[in-house]
Amino acid sequence: MTGELLIGVDFGGTKILTGAMTADGEVVCDPVKLPTNGGDAPEKIIGRVTASIDEVLAKTGAEREDVAGIGMGVTGPIDIRNGRILECPQLPTLHFYPLKKMIEERYGRPVHMNNDANCLIYGETLFGSGVGMKNVVGFTLGTGVGCAIIIDRNIFVGNTESAGEIWPSPYRDGTIEDLVSGSGVSKIYRRITGCDKTARDISVLAEQGDSGALATWEEFGRHLSVAMSWTVNIIDPEAVILGGSISEAFKFFGPSMEDHFRKHICPTPARQTKVVCAKLGANAGFIGAAALAL
Amino acid sequence: MTGELLIGVDFGGTKILTGAMTADGEVVCDPVKLPTNGGDAPEKIIGRVTASIDEVLAKTGAEREDVAGIGMGVTGPIDIRNGRILECPQLPTLHFYPLKKMIEERYGRPVHMNNDANCLIYGETLFGSGVGMKNVVGFTLGTGVGCAIIIDRNIFVGNTESAGEIWPSPYRDGTIEDLVSGSGVSKIYRRITGCDKTARDISVLAEQGDSGALATWEEFGRHLSVAMSWTVNIIDPEAVILGGSISEAFKFFGPSMEDHFRKHICPTPARQTKVVCAKLGANAGFIGAAALAL
Repeated sequence: MTGELLIGVDFGGTKILTGAMTADGEVVCDPVKLPTNGGDAPEKIIGRVTASIDEVLAKTGAEREDVAGIGMGVTGPIDIRNGRILECPQLPTLHFYPLKKMIEERYGRPVHMNNDANCLIYGETLFGSGVGMKNVVGFTLGTGVGCAIIIDRNIFVGNTESAGEIWPSPYRDGTIEDLVSGSGVSKIYRRITGCDKTARDISVLAEQGDSGALATWEEFGRHLSVAMSWTVNIIDPEAVILGGSISEAFKFFGPSMEDHFRKHICPTPARQTKVVCAKLGANAGFIGAAALAL
Repeated sequence: MTGELLIGVDFGGTKILTGAMTADGEVVCDPVKLPTNGGDAPEKIIGRVTASIDEVLAKTGAEREDVAGIGMGVTGPIDIRNGRILECPQLPTLHFYPLKKMIEERYGRPVHMNNDANCLIYGETLFGSGVGMKNVVGFTLGTGVGCAIIIDRNIFVGNTESAGEIWPSPYRDGTIEDLVSGSGVSKIYRRITGCDKTARDISVLAEQGDSGALATWEEFGRHLSVAMSWTVNIIDPEAVILGGSISEAFKFFGPSMEDHFRKHICPTPARQTKVVCAKLGANAGFIGAAALAL
């Protein structure tokens, strides 16, 4: 099976998730999950990255020469072109670490890097909820808000590798991320109820029919629709993919989001643009990373 | 000079401006300008389009076989793929008119179409204030707000040919076009002074030091910066080009726009993204249209 295997590493601030797939997106073994422990010394963290790759190779029974390439989705900011980690707050010991070069030297295979949010949406586009589509935008809704732009089935990174970095965009008296984020959900709930809860708690409360939680998600949907409308009016994609932990509350924020979203985009996209949730789950990140090596 | 000439037609609601250029963007004769008279019968309007092309050919001394192609920038909405005018409010007698096919049959040369705002920014990117750049976004600020996206030196139109149609994007209690447009400038001035003036008048008043007019442009700059921030955060272009009649008031709205714009985009683009005014003037439209045939 020489050169047929793609390795993908989802290298986040809390965990390293590494897997292997074929060029058709077929995952060939259970992925390997290790903690990042981002405060450790560089050699320890990178040791866990290579240990996860070695374990995946062992599981698949593949040799290095069976690997077409290794893709890495790394928590940002990173320098994609030069394959370096930048001043990433979640990897404080790895600032300016030449990750691509080190992994290439270790395995003798081509290594590709992109940021983890881009990889997640890339994986979904090629092998998940965006299968068959060319132009897609995706939002990763978690602690903050990420946005990935896929044009012609490639991740579009722009001039300074900042395309899709919508978090500082102006909204009301601040930025869109003030409200479209996990802490934004908590902020809305606090304003409505006076209580402090995490987005996850507010999701559980909504399941139980709590009126403050339901009102929170209804309002969140309207704020999210603002980011989606601007992005869709600019890119005019076939679909918007919603991923990240907060997208799991879709049934609570989806209706208000859809209503406001369709009213603030052009007539033809309003009829045609799909809104779908990510469906590859935790695997999307390493699948999208592996796809960088396609 | 067989196949060396490009003809460009800027086909707007009020005028038809047609010119000829070389593949290097060199304009080879004075353009020909005719009124559109959009309410006339189709054959009369199209007769003026072909009369303008014929006159340009006569001026250059070129034969049909010298023409590599004809590009047409048409006031929208249009069906780019099929070369048809759609339900364009400025060309009420030409709804669903197969413009590309008719001009191709008449001249026996390849005809390319795009909307006029896209052509203006395309011309500026290739031969005006965006020379040498690959990724650019441009705003045409006139009666309304248009936005064109240039990726890899091509006009990016998206899935339903609506990419860059930012006018319905949510802003405050309405849409961005409520304030970022000629009528938006008038609206701001009316709120500040209680008087009704056109954007052009308000520009003249600003020249004279009128405080209401200066405050109007200062405020307009902040609203414009919102559209620019969202677009730059999504596309991360090398430059933003500002065109259209309202861009001529740049010296009045530029400082407040720049200030707010740089604060609402990511740090690297905030340092690197250029903001420039269109510089080809009235010729940009036909130059960009001609460039479609490159």
